[in-house]
Amino acid sequence: MRLRKKEWSSEVFETFADYTVTEFETIKGNWKEALGSELLHLEIGSGKGDYWHQLSALYPDRGIVAMERDFTASSIALKKLEKNPGDHKRFIYGDAENLNDMFAPGEVDVVHLNFSDPWPKKRHTKRRLTYKDKLDEYYSVLSDRGEIWMKTDNVGLFNYSLVSVGQHKFELVEVDVDFRSHEHEDPFTEYERKFHEMGQPIFRAIWRKK
Amino acid sequence: MRLRKKEWSSEVFETFADYTVTEFETIKGNWKEALGSELLHLEIGSGKGDYWHQLSALYPDRGIVAMERDFTASSIALKKLEKNPGDHKRFIYGDAENLNDMFAPGEVDVVHLNFSDPWPKKRHTKRRLTYKDKLDEYYSVLSDRGEIWMKTDNVGLFNYSLVSVGQHKFELVEVDVDFRSHEHEDPFTEYERKFHEMGQPIFRAIWRKK
Repeated sequence: MRLRKKEWSSEVFETFADYTVTEFETIKGNWKEALGSELLHLEIGSGKGDYWHQLSALYPDRGIVAMERDFTASSIALKKLEKNPGDHKRFIYGDAENLNDMFAPGEVDVVHLNFSDPWPKKRHTKRRLTYKDKLDEYYSVLSDRGEIWMKTDNVGLFNYSLVSVGQHKFELVEVDVDFRSHEHEDPFTEYERKFHEMGQPIFRAIWRKK
Repeated sequence: MRLRKKEWSSEVFETFADYTVTEFETIKGNWKEALGSELLHLEIGSGKGDYWHQLSALYPDRGIVAMERDFTASSIALKKLEKNPGDHKRFIYGDAENLNDMFAPGEVDVVHLNFSDPWPKKRHTKRRLTYKDKLDEYYSVLSDRGEIWMKTDNVGLFNYSLVSVGQHKFELVEVDVDFRSHEHEDPFTEYERKFHEMGQPIFRAIWRKK
């Protein structure tokens, strides 16, 4: 019998419960100890998890945390742990509303924003993951000289972010308006692979805490 | 008899000598008075002058100064004054080496860099018009909240400039990694028209003095 999507998803969540952090009291302030790493990456909006798993393979000595708020996407990302296990990875099913409850100040070294929802309407500006209120949260959990790494194919979101982030406590240190025209070790996300194959330019920026 | 290029060019220079500023002692510090304008634009590297003439038509109340170091391009730009005269425009045949000899501190409101030479080799970085030494010159002749408006189709130059200018006394206030996908009153340069018609994205950024 084939499980319905929701049942299948719930089962995956149970199977990989050890990877999923739901209580933050103990781990907050101790992430690096728990993951045996000196650097901690946090991907906000990890979708189906390809980037999370590949980044974990690229940096086996770093803690790699994925955060996703969509239930089905989360279960697909978790399911891939079967073939991609690792003590240095963790998963948070939820959104980036209260990062300060999850991470101690300065605990995160890199925040990844990959192909985030562009929220193109002006009245939804505050929902963009590069809106200043969000930047305040990243700033607070990021270490000294901690970084935001962003990729998107969305012109509007990229234009907005270059101005918004650059004007708010962060400094642009790297940018590429045609990131995939060169070789990079940075992994592709599912979306990125698709857009790149369609010939769309991929935009990438790295900002550092000022 | 058809004139040779150099003869033709020299003749054009003579015909439009009134537009061409070669001595800066008198006009330095008095550009706005001389051009009857409250704002002064300076295009560095104006090529064959289409942008210069169109910008002058767009802003008839502003002083519009074009600067070009190529002799033939300069003469073509000047020749177009026949059909596009204007008391508010001036031309400088030369390069942006000594802006401080030409303009008093704070005298310029907008510096335009259109499709500047990308100087792609690392050892030529210092020649790029967005290298920090150049930025120091612009900073000095620009007014409070004076701006740099840049357009290019060159990925490498744009990537470089976003980091270089944003880290050096200027703040990014507007950017578009696909400028010509929307309507704008900003005129096309000759190059821009060609690249746009070839389907290339045009990159545009505006930085303001911090």
